[in-house]
Amino acid sequence: MHILVTGAAGMIGRKLTERLLKTGTLRGRKIASLDLHDIVPAQAASTGGIAVKALTGDLADEGASARLIESRPDVIFHLAGVVSGEAEANFDLGYRVNLVGSKALFDAVRLTEGYTPRLVFASSIAVYGGPFPDVIPDDFQQAPLSSYGTQKLMSELVLTDYTRRGFMDGIGIRFPTICVRPGKPNKAASGFFSGIIREPLDGKEALLPVPRSVVHTHASPRAAVNFLIHGAEIDGAEVGPRRNITMPGVGVTVGEQIEALRRIAGEKVVGLIREEHDEAVWGLVKNWPTRFEAKRARELGFQAETSFDEIVRAHIEDELGGKVPV
Amino acid sequence: MHILVTGAAGMIGRKLTERLLKTGTLRGRKIASLDLHDIVPAQAASTGGIAVKALTGDLADEGASARLIESRPDVIFHLAGVVSGEAEANFDLGYRVNLVGSKALFDAVRLTEGYTPRLVFASSIAVYGGPFPDVIPDDFQQAPLSSYGTQKLMSELVLTDYTRRGFMDGIGIRFPTICVRPGKPNKAASGFFSGIIREPLDGKEALLPVPRSVVHTHASPRAAVNFLIHGAEIDGAEVGPRRNITMPGVGVTVGEQIEALRRIAGEKVVGLIREEHDEAVWGLVKNWPTRFEAKRARELGFQAETSFDEIVRAHIEDELGGKVPV
Repeated sequence: MHILVTGAAGMIGRKLTERLLKTGTLRGRKIASLDLHDIVPAQAASTGGIAVKALTGDLADEGASARLIESRPDVIFHLAGVVSGEAEANFDLGYRVNLVGSKALFDAVRLTEGYTPRLVFASSIAVYGGPFPDVIPDDFQQAPLSSYGTQKLMSELVLTDYTRRGFMDGIGIRFPTICVRPGKPNKAASGFFSGIIREPLDGKEALLPVPRSVVHTHASPRAAVNFLIHGAEIDGAEVGPRRNITMPGVGVTVGEQIEALRRIAGEKVVGLIREEHDEAVWGLVKNWPTRFEAKRARELGFQAETSFDEIVRAHIEDELGGKVPV
Repeated sequence: MHILVTGAAGMIGRKLTERLLKTGTLRGRKIASLDLHDIVPAQAASTGGIAVKALTGDLADEGASARLIESRPDVIFHLAGVVSGEAEANFDLGYRVNLVGSKALFDAVRLTEGYTPRLVFASSIAVYGGPFPDVIPDDFQQAPLSSYGTQKLMSELVLTDYTRRGFMDGIGIRFPTICVRPGKPNKAASGFFSGIIREPLDGKEALLPVPRSVVHTHASPRAAVNFLIHGAEIDGAEVGPRRNITMPGVGVTVGEQIEALRRIAGEKVVGLIREEHDEAVWGLVKNWPTRFEAKRARELGFQAETSFDEIVRAHIEDELGGKVPV
């Protein structure tokens, strides 16, 4: 089993790499080699008989994608992309990386004779745009309100068409917000969803810029990796022609997030959350999707946490060595 | 008022041109000039003070789109495209014309400083793919099952994003099947929907390759031109951010089509329809969408026929000089 991961130096890419190196198998086969691609070298060492190679480059460069798949990986995890805020701020970069880069990779696969790898693509619920019903069903229209969502959806469409034509065997995974995101606070408008859990657990103050009544859907980084692995292993015939699947998650209010933190880490930790309304953040967040039905994903065996308590515990286990601060 | 029409030599392009030359105004302003673009020269002469120019070329060629809009048309009707069957049979041509060509035109507009024309794009209900509910609501997912539908939908998405960003003022018109299509029978799988009306009215036999119970949605060529004109004139603010609109039409069974023909043209004409089941055509048609709600289009003032009788009469008026054969 030869695997390629693009965007391997990102948060999800690193966690996926860790998991693949730890389990050592995919689709019931032993992993022999793992190519990690990104614009900066991914940090991972060969281990347990798995040959790890860090490759750098830009998928949109002439010939870059073709070189990357010359070794014919059996499974490609295509995670590379610029994030929502960056795609909105930098028009050219967003289209180049998120659309042209993805299409270049898909075309390289298409043009390789007798080669139809499973390609798992990291898409996003940003393919949806409001107004929304209370719970978004799987058959709801995709009408993105961002360049990022547009680029992800266009890539999804190419994936579906190329799969239908037998050029590859694609599965698109529409991620909800990944929470608790480890690492430093970033400037993403969605950052506070993780910040109000991560920072207090680290003994630091966190700002809450929106009302506690805001509803949003979350899945842990651990669940995100599970989605990708299941996306690599699932039977394509079972999926059928609609290859892009909205993932399940935990739909909760910000207030419920905070109550989960209180139950697990106590009053003192929760006391580090300071409400400071931010009109700019609120202006974006109020138009975001709230809850997803994700019936199809569940039926296909994709699993997320079922409560926000589980999401907080996953963070404590995976990032804090299981220790809750007292 | 300066207007550009791409795909001007096609059936809808010719009818749109005729209408524009006849009415002489658009958006309440006098039409001064009309540029007709296609891969072959469109046949139309300057008339009534409107300067008509036939231009030929391929929108996807380097610089072709930029040259085409150098004169800064106030309204662009973008009808150019290869049809469904051709896009499926010829992968490279379909993506080149329907995706790269459209994006090249949209990008040329984007890159022209201080220029945000109304751009009316001819899209298609092929952006939808089954399985379908009995009546497809406006918020139903777009999951195309053809390369044509994929390319149209990708172009729609670029149109929406570019409009949201203020690069242009786009409106996408999702056409139902246009019926009765004038001219010779063609090889399109949908051809019989027109053929069973047009050929008998011309004294010729027509084959019916599917069961009479098949339901499908139709609008006349006249209605199609009305959609485009209304798309050019409608207030963009009223449309909002969802810029691609599924048009209304007449959803009927093939049996009801035939009954309308019988009411209008009599038994002898209907007797020219010969049922001859074609498994290949049926295999395609049975997966096509049946009825659309098109609530939004109606609310926005798009109007189609309300009965198939009207569609038959429109054909008789527009193509047969008002004369029903006896």
